[in-house]
Amino acid sequence: MNVLPEPVIRLIEAFARLPGVGPKTAQRLTYHVLRAADTEARTLAAALVAVRDEVVYCATCHNISSSTLCAICADEARDDERLCVVEEPLDVLALERTGAFKGRYHVLHGAISPMDGIGPDRLRVRELLDRCAARCTEGRPFAEVVLATNPTLEGEATAMYLAERLAADVGSITRIARGLPVGGDLEYADEVTLVRALQGRREFEIAAER
Amino acid sequence: MNVLPEPVIRLIEAFARLPGVGPKTAQRLTYHVLRAADTEARTLAAALVAVRDEVVYCATCHNISSSTLCAICADEARDDERLCVVEEPLDVLALERTGAFKGRYHVLHGAISPMDGIGPDRLRVRELLDRCAARCTEGRPFAEVVLATNPTLEGEATAMYLAERLAADVGSITRIARGLPVGGDLEYADEVTLVRALQGRREFEIAAER
Repeated sequence: MNVLPEPVIRLIEAFARLPGVGPKTAQRLTYHVLRAADTEARTLAAALVAVRDEVVYCATCHNISSSTLCAICADEARDDERLCVVEEPLDVLALERTGAFKGRYHVLHGAISPMDGIGPDRLRVRELLDRCAARCTEGRPFAEVVLATNPTLEGEATAMYLAERLAADVGSITRIARGLPVGGDLEYADEVTLVRALQGRREFEIAAER
Repeated sequence: MNVLPEPVIRLIEAFARLPGVGPKTAQRLTYHVLRAADTEARTLAAALVAVRDEVVYCATCHNISSSTLCAICADEARDDERLCVVEEPLDVLALERTGAFKGRYHVLHGAISPMDGIGPDRLRVRELLDRCAARCTEGRPFAEVVLATNPTLEGEATAMYLAERLAADVGSITRIARGLPVGGDLEYADEVTLVRALQGRREFEIAAER
């Protein structure tokens, strides 16, 4: 016998399709929606529809955007010499929060992963190569392309792949540093990270390190 | 500078209002909605609206329902002699899954919690007392009222409160057993549970225990 009303079952099922939401959590979320203020459910519903209707991808960097050119690509104050290549839009967000990078971005929308059948053709790799080549043709190649894909197997493979393809068209190609996270503990760091931290060691600059 | 399109920010905020969803999870969910099939977001949006528009509370037991009388209250095959009092609709669901209770339910929609300012008047307590009193007046009082509120401070207080008020109007009042969960480990059980398990010990029935 079905104890739950049909709309409740449908909402539980819809919640359960979200990543990281199991059947129990889906039940709890549904129950919350039932108890919470009416506006809360409707605001979420409207936001879901709006995000699908209004969000597009920037024609230049392929980041999520509400117009053909995203805010970063449209911003003339940004450093036009430097390009940072990331896997996902959320990576742009994370980097922007630091305020440490003032250049442009290129969002790949994933990483090369032969295991999952994801080759360069499934990503915005072609667009990146074309973008760099076009800049080269215009006589003003990017001075630096920062490969900021994740320090995972797939991210490293993607960085390596891109470094090879881009070599001829850009000034320099750099890779974000791998090492111990700030606040981390050497004792608990994994071996690969420790090796990277040693390999990436730099001259101790007394003034800079404070 | 705001990197994210306005609709994306709104969806992140809407997700973050759900219980157990922090800002990071809200970002991930939003990003999933952006990447997933269009129908997925729209199905969730429609389900959210439907649940608010179509779900009501059963006039008799106050469980969530799609009609004035819920499926359990409307089912003539249920044992009309026994009433199980629970805190939340999800508790009904959990009990129904066991198939071990064939009677009717009453959903309180919470538990008495003076700390949170929740008195009996904020719950469906009045409706429960009236329901039991009415049955008494009709000359067919409930043979048994099972108090199945949670084994928490609030649930126990609620059960105690209800037991006192209902005593005159129902046949017997029972409380669900507190003890060691099946598959649990005596060594790791908390003291209160162990005390309850000892207090609630029963004659070993060789046939019944198999």
